[in-house]
Amino acid sequence: MHRVKVRVVEDALDANNTIARANRDDFDRHAVTVVNLMSAPGAGKTTLLERVLHDLPVRAGVLEGDVQGSYDADRLASLHVPVTQLNTDPGFGGECHLDANMVRSALPALPLDDIDLLVIENVGNLVCPAEFRVGEDARVMVSSVTEGEDKPLKYPLMFRTCELVLINKIDLLPHLDFDMEQFLHNLDAVHPGVPRMQVSARTGEGVEAWRDWLTRLPAEVPA
Amino acid sequence: MHRVKVRVVEDALDANNTIARANRDDFDRHAVTVVNLMSAPGAGKTTLLERVLHDLPVRAGVLEGDVQGSYDADRLASLHVPVTQLNTDPGFGGECHLDANMVRSALPALPLDDIDLLVIENVGNLVCPAEFRVGEDARVMVSSVTEGEDKPLKYPLMFRTCELVLINKIDLLPHLDFDMEQFLHNLDAVHPGVPRMQVSARTGEGVEAWRDWLTRLPAEVPA
Repeated sequence: MHRVKVRVVEDALDANNTIARANRDDFDRHAVTVVNLMSAPGAGKTTLLERVLHDLPVRAGVLEGDVQGSYDADRLASLHVPVTQLNTDPGFGGECHLDANMVRSALPALPLDDIDLLVIENVGNLVCPAEFRVGEDARVMVSSVTEGEDKPLKYPLMFRTCELVLINKIDLLPHLDFDMEQFLHNLDAVHPGVPRMQVSARTGEGVEAWRDWLTRLPAEVPA
Repeated sequence: MHRVKVRVVEDALDANNTIARANRDDFDRHAVTVVNLMSAPGAGKTTLLERVLHDLPVRAGVLEGDVQGSYDADRLASLHVPVTQLNTDPGFGGECHLDANMVRSALPALPLDDIDLLVIENVGNLVCPAEFRVGEDARVMVSSVTEGEDKPLKYPLMFRTCELVLINKIDLLPHLDFDMEQFLHNLDAVHPGVPRMQVSARTGEGVEAWRDWLTRLPAEVPA
């Protein structure tokens, strides 16, 4: 029984990768660079987007993934960038991640001819989003210092498969027992040398580097 | 294709419920009351257990669910309560939740004759753990104020299916823009009147009520 289950899952991941490649081809054809933005619930993905999207010097759009509702899309609407909402609740009482086929279903709603950069804000979850490629060029994960130093060790796949780690909420460091050196040690244990930025979406500290990274990305990723 | 997928998932949830009932029968036979403790990653589940387990007036044990590793079990080992580790990584590159069959596989390792209360610490995730009963008597979820006021609206199933909400990290409230009144309004919108406690695992504020709740539970749930 267990063996059957594993085979079905492997087939599902294989099918996902096939569709992710098709998405990637479509993004490339429109010269759109795609970022898959992931984190635990409440780590600050949306606020980090609010901080940079209003004055980003590339034409950006957002695909918002949520189990249900459009709270984050509503927050981003005032920034005058195209935002498309994708809800996962029709399947399985709410899927805990975006997969390639869900993103594919949203392609017709995306203004791919009018943007250079698409940020896909994934469902808040440190496990399954890391397992499903959606056709992205780069993966960025946000880890809040309020979550503790042990997270890279407990959710290694997420930290291992991303190109950039945003260490958020550093304005709270004086009020936490968080040991940054230990966190960075744990991060390097699962993903040695991965680029990382210490930021505060709340105060804006470090956000300039995050804006620069997003701005440079379309030029650095060959479309 | 989509219709087939939904049917398979419904079958899987039905099978899960069947096994959950079998777990529940076994727990009842040993007069063990079971709590399913859930939250997002880093919300403070383990610290809230550390705070109360060392002097709980009922005989307690813990089943630790993690994708991989035994960091939380190691932390709890010093409290001299029986702790059993359950890792989800053999399946699917790491399951994002415990299900009834995983818990069933751990039953032989649990000292059910020697405890009155079993706390199952689920994988950190606000989506799938809410969909899979494991044979518990009560569900407790921890929501950290650092995660924002919108979480009940974005992850309604989790907040709707629990018997108690622990609102943790209230020591950080002076340093956050968190609006407690708005959070409680959102909580009542998805689960009107659900018992809630404002606590700080770090300072110990409010933890006494959480200890009392756990202490009373075995008497209140008819085994």
